[in-house]
Amino acid sequence: MGAIKNARHPFYDHCDEALDRIRHEGRYRNFTPLARHAERFPVYGEERPDMPDGRDVVVWSTNDYLGMGVVPEVQEAAIAAVRDHGAGAGGTRNIAGTSPLHNELEAEMASLHGKEAGLLFVSGYVSNQASLQTILTSMPGWICFSDRLNHASMIAGIKGARASQTVIFEHNDLEDLERKLAAAPADAPKLIAFESVYSMDGDMSDIGAICALARKYGALTYLDEVHAVGLYGAEGGGVSQRDGVADQVDIIEGTLAKGFGVHGGYITAAAGIIDFLRSTASGFIFTTALPPCVVGAALQSVRMVRAENWRREALFERVNTFRQRLRAAGVPFTMTPSHIVPIPVGDAECCKRISRRLLNEFGQYATPINYPTVPEGTERLRLTPGPFHTDEMMDDMVRALATLLRAEGLMPEQRTGQAA
Amino acid sequence: MGAIKNARHPFYDHCDEALDRIRHEGRYRNFTPLARHAERFPVYGEERPDMPDGRDVVVWSTNDYLGMGVVPEVQEAAIAAVRDHGAGAGGTRNIAGTSPLHNELEAEMASLHGKEAGLLFVSGYVSNQASLQTILTSMPGWICFSDRLNHASMIAGIKGARASQTVIFEHNDLEDLERKLAAAPADAPKLIAFESVYSMDGDMSDIGAICALARKYGALTYLDEVHAVGLYGAEGGGVSQRDGVADQVDIIEGTLAKGFGVHGGYITAAAGIIDFLRSTASGFIFTTALPPCVVGAALQSVRMVRAENWRREALFERVNTFRQRLRAAGVPFTMTPSHIVPIPVGDAECCKRISRRLLNEFGQYATPINYPTVPEGTERLRLTPGPFHTDEMMDDMVRALATLLRAEGLMPEQRTGQAA
Ligand SMILES: Cc1ncc(COP(=O)(O)O)c(C=O)c1O
Ligand SMILES: Cc1ncc(COP(=O)(O)O)c(C=O)c1O
Repeated sequence: MGAIKNARHPFYDHCDEALDRIRHEGRYRNFTPLARHAERFPVYGEERPDMPDGRDVVVWSTNDYLGMGVVPEVQEAAIAAVRDHGAGAGGTRNIAGTSPLHNELEAEMASLHGKEAGLLFVSGYVSNQASLQTILTSMPGWICFSDRLNHASMIAGIKGARASQTVIFEHNDLEDLERKLAAAPADAPKLIAFESVYSMDGDMSDIGAICALARKYGALTYLDEVHAVGLYGAEGGGVSQRDGVADQVDIIEGTLAKGFGVHGGYITAAAGIIDFLRSTASGFIFTTALPPCVVGAALQSVRMVRAENWRREALFERVNTFRQRLRAAGVPFTMTPSHIVPIPVGDAECCKRISRRLLNEFGQYATPINYPTVPEGTERLRLTPGPFHTDEMMDDMVRALATLLRAEGLMPEQRTGQAA
Repeated sequence: MGAIKNARHPFYDHCDEALDRIRHEGRYRNFTPLARHAERFPVYGEERPDMPDGRDVVVWSTNDYLGMGVVPEVQEAAIAAVRDHGAGAGGTRNIAGTSPLHNELEAEMASLHGKEAGLLFVSGYVSNQASLQTILTSMPGWICFSDRLNHASMIAGIKGARASQTVIFEHNDLEDLERKLAAAPADAPKLIAFESVYSMDGDMSDIGAICALARKYGALTYLDEVHAVGLYGAEGGGVSQRDGVADQVDIIEGTLAKGFGVHGGYITAAAGIIDFLRSTASGFIFTTALPPCVVGAALQSVRMVRAENWRREALFERVNTFRQRLRAAGVPFTMTPSHIVPIPVGDAECCKRISRRLLNEFGQYATPINYPTVPEGTERLRLTPGPFHTDEMMDDMVRALATLLRAEGLMPEQRTGQAA
């Protein structure tokens, strides 16, 4: 008990030690500052101490999958909103921060997913965290069935609901999920939380089958379509739209920051659910509304993405072409049913080294994906080729990858096509 | 155990019942959609079913306290960044989402608060939630001493750190805080979390005195300057700058969405703390970086606000003038040491009614502040007059308030100056 004077708080040492450990494990992250050139996307500018004017880099790791953030109409919508309404919203949604644009975008997202209503959040992360935490705190006895590979933002919301119970089911394992649903008390309120496209492995869930289990066992379904919206389905409504099962999902969550190229997150659901979350979710209520320029740009982007199927076709044509070239050059990659092209490496230091050499020696940028984003031992490069990557960029990248993977012993000397 | 078929999930009924209860208690919130006219701030456009062209409304509830969001240089910075870099960041900070602008803004915020480093988050809410949760999870045995009136975002972070202990001290009560610090085990890691300006009451904490207690008992200090940054101190570094005690605070948190008029949140602290949170805070890592246009606009705004003291002077001149006019007209308000002017009402329905009539009959907008934002029984209007409110707007608002408060019996018939 009592006073201790002038001691350095132990948290300072804790930080230093934790950082040493992270460095020692090879997973210290340096963010590479890259300035996106809107007119030359996916070419970015890199500032380098050794080059006064910096230099150009081709980026293979953007989540602006369709390049919507640099579509002139989307930029112009952002600019018009800045001119008309200023740079920020100036208040929470309740305190003078709701503009007609916010309401329009919420209606647009609801319409995209065939739901009664939508709700915007400052990010996809917050939409998951705030929605799941609020739902799972709403009634006593909630049991949340959560896919083992769910995103950190869903886990944050699920863990945040302290009184609820969490049952993790094996990734995409319907038998395990059913076994666990069947073992739970029939009268407990249940929720199944899962994603459509798992972004690090690029695999997909069987939404229809999960919804069938949900119906059988009386569970609510919560689906994260963050890496699918804009890209799958006739209007970019995600995998649930492509598979014709959106109406079976109770709550569909998405982001405006990836396929739609702007910023912010949202959920869509029945009007009662949306109104309940609007009225009670702390992470929605107590924060400044998204700036009108973000909302205006997102609205423009979503409308274009819904109407213009050629953007999705262009994406998948490019992804297929890139895979063909990787295969022809014998560069190992994981074949996925999605637009994501993982290159397995399996070691944090090696992953960082390949990424660094790609950048320094070849002017190609692919982020090393290490723990905590993926489990240790499954480190990888994660490539997201898009409509703006040219054949020539692909050839350069495939050559660079082949050189470096060979140097690391991750690829045989002879050229044999294979998918790892 | 087992399957139940085709039942409506009980969550749907729960939502309906909760909304009925909220309505019954008079605290159902309708967001009034208002479009900010950048060139005519604080005049906004209201869409009304009864008026095809809508109409003008004077807003008294913005948190863009200095009107920085509509300063042409700030708008132009946003526009330039949209043109150069597109509408979104396109990735998390680690995955191609860090632009040189992000690094510049982090350095700028660190410099403003005299700290070694800064870290951006998508909002002030997330900066509090993610930072506090990560800190209070970092070591075993943390005890967080939290002011009773701390903002929901701090509470979210503190509660989110499940293994830590929370001790709530009475609002701004240094004796209570010291008693509680003294009663805690001397060797437990301690943190004191508090705000400089409490936005709903407009009162301030004694930062220097709290830091003195923190030193005496070996506690880390975490200060939310959200409603103070831009407004107090020679460069707008907040109350900690004004009081000359910023160097005594370990972590200073702020927002770019209020005094700076844009969007996003941040913390500043010693380099080791910032690097630790950058490397481990889920709410920082797993989310798309702020859009370059937001970052560019914020950078411009912060630089102007730091350099231009006349903006702060103009704000306080307007606040003082407004208070004088309220007093002269006998309109009751709570006198505060800050820029915030609360008008006590004390009942949720009445608060909403006054707000609705202000809007419908007088074209003046002031948000009703009800539970859960403030405790039940302390409902109020919260006015934030700013540099853009003219004398004429003030006269109109004072007249409107006098009429409505009299009608509600909240103000005597005769005109006597008083501060409630
Ligand atoms: C599956 C998943 N959900 C949610 C998010 C968060 O979305 P946002 O970037 O809009 O915060 C991400 C990535 O950032 C994600 O990968
Ligand atoms: C004290 C306090 N801290 C943090 C926040 C959150 O900041 P932001 O609006 O940037 O999320 C708010 C209000 O929104 C606040 O009042």
